[in-house]
Amino acid sequence: MPSPADAAPLRDAARLSLNQITTDRVSTPAMLDACARHDIRCVAIWRHKIAETGLETMVRLVRDAGVRVSSVCRGGMFPAASRAEREQRIDDNRRAIDAAAALGAPVLVLVCGAAPDRDIAGARGAVEHGIERIVPHAAECGVTLGIEPLHPAFAAERSCITTLREARLLAEKFDAGTVGVIADVYHIWWDADVHAEIARCAGRLAGFHVSDWLVPATNVLMNRGMMGDGVIELRRLRASVERAGWGGPIEVEIFNDKVWDTPLDRLLPLMKERFLACV
Amino acid sequence: MPSPADAAPLRDAARLSLNQITTDRVSTPAMLDACARHDIRCVAIWRHKIAETGLETMVRLVRDAGVRVSSVCRGGMFPAASRAEREQRIDDNRRAIDAAAALGAPVLVLVCGAAPDRDIAGARGAVEHGIERIVPHAAECGVTLGIEPLHPAFAAERSCITTLREARLLAEKFDAGTVGVIADVYHIWWDADVHAEIARCAGRLAGFHVSDWLVPATNVLMNRGMMGDGVIELRRLRASVERAGWGGPIEVEIFNDKVWDTPLDRLLPLMKERFLACV
Repeated sequence: MPSPADAAPLRDAARLSLNQITTDRVSTPAMLDACARHDIRCVAIWRHKIAETGLETMVRLVRDAGVRVSSVCRGGMFPAASRAEREQRIDDNRRAIDAAAALGAPVLVLVCGAAPDRDIAGARGAVEHGIERIVPHAAECGVTLGIEPLHPAFAAERSCITTLREARLLAEKFDAGTVGVIADVYHIWWDADVHAEIARCAGRLAGFHVSDWLVPATNVLMNRGMMGDGVIELRRLRASVERAGWGGPIEVEIFNDKVWDTPLDRLLPLMKERFLACV
Repeated sequence: MPSPADAAPLRDAARLSLNQITTDRVSTPAMLDACARHDIRCVAIWRHKIAETGLETMVRLVRDAGVRVSSVCRGGMFPAASRAEREQRIDDNRRAIDAAAALGAPVLVLVCGAAPDRDIAGARGAVEHGIERIVPHAAECGVTLGIEPLHPAFAAERSCITTLREARLLAEKFDAGTVGVIADVYHIWWDADVHAEIARCAGRLAGFHVSDWLVPATNVLMNRGMMGDGVIELRRLRASVERAGWGGPIEVEIFNDKVWDTPLDRLLPLMKERFLACV
């Protein structure tokens, strides 16, 4: 069932981008073959999949498949206990930027990282400092860094950046062409200010990700569902990001064991159907 | 280990209030006996425990034990699918106010409720309307309604009110003597604005609850830990609520199976020790 809507339904699935985590249990070639069978022309690529194939092979696979790459997931993870670790992460982010550039991806998604201790304000400082360090390389490579605020349930383990507002205020410290924000409905739907805040992100949006929030929630990492199976007002959120100027790809990004166990020839048609019916 | 601190340690546990959910697996008389043995003089009482004993018996038990009641948990749960259900919940909230008054509790904690559908903005409206309906009875009984924002992980199932800011803006629509906000560290610690927002709550604080956020988090409902076992900067948050004028009880409220399985003669001394060391 569609949410209470104030955007017109999408006419086709041309803007759908398959975020590779949604098909995490299959290889990249198998994922790309399924995209070809189901006419999906845009994907987001994860770095652990690049590590499996090697970057050159991944570039060739994607080129041969004729798909666009909407983003690479993920950079970030800046805070660390020691200076050496922090430097290692800066280097790793530069390699992630290189991978995005090689794949023709306009965006590297940043999952910023959590405090290594109790000092969440300190971690936020480390994130800002880390982004500052990688911005020149991103600008040189023509890759936009997309700061993705994660749901506050991940504040202790994955991201000290927890709201769209916080991500935007951080992004605004840098050039709009190089640092933007990612609006992922799973992470931001609960926010009483979400629609107003999306409006304030005009000119800074670097991505829009969809899934759904299932009820009841137990394990928050794996609680995402197929669009329409949960409580998020997806169409209303799409209306807001479009009013804020986002006309780019809409990534379907689902961490969910049942989704991961569904054969792609069942999963991808369902995903397209729900994309049109609910987003 | 204490958090990075900018408040002096508490000299004694006089302000500690045992929130009854922390001892959920024992009866009220057993809880009160343990409080007497361990010199805990203030408790928060849950309504399912009142339902077990009956209100008159609970009033007598608490009076005979000579403890103060810092709050009754909980009213709220205003949004519902039908008008009849919403009315039933208003009535139930009035009974909860009566229970708080009978127990001499200055505060009824409100867990506001979630949308019965996808319309979270509608649910927020229902919460405001519900509070409006019960405010006259609360004022008449001298009971303050404490709006408790819950962690956004509970937005779909327990509370559409998810941040201290949202709770404060809602409370400010009513008289400060009748509607306040509850700052529970577990629900608000992740918020980049938490200290500034606590300052804005000056004159509206109706309670301060402590526990800890354990890592890794799986089931968010049961992920609370004993103070000091997780990542929350408890002492810094206490400093903020004290700067905002809160000098009242500090409730220890822990939903956690291991805590619930710990015999009270081990649990309560540990709780007092951690209260002094970490809060």
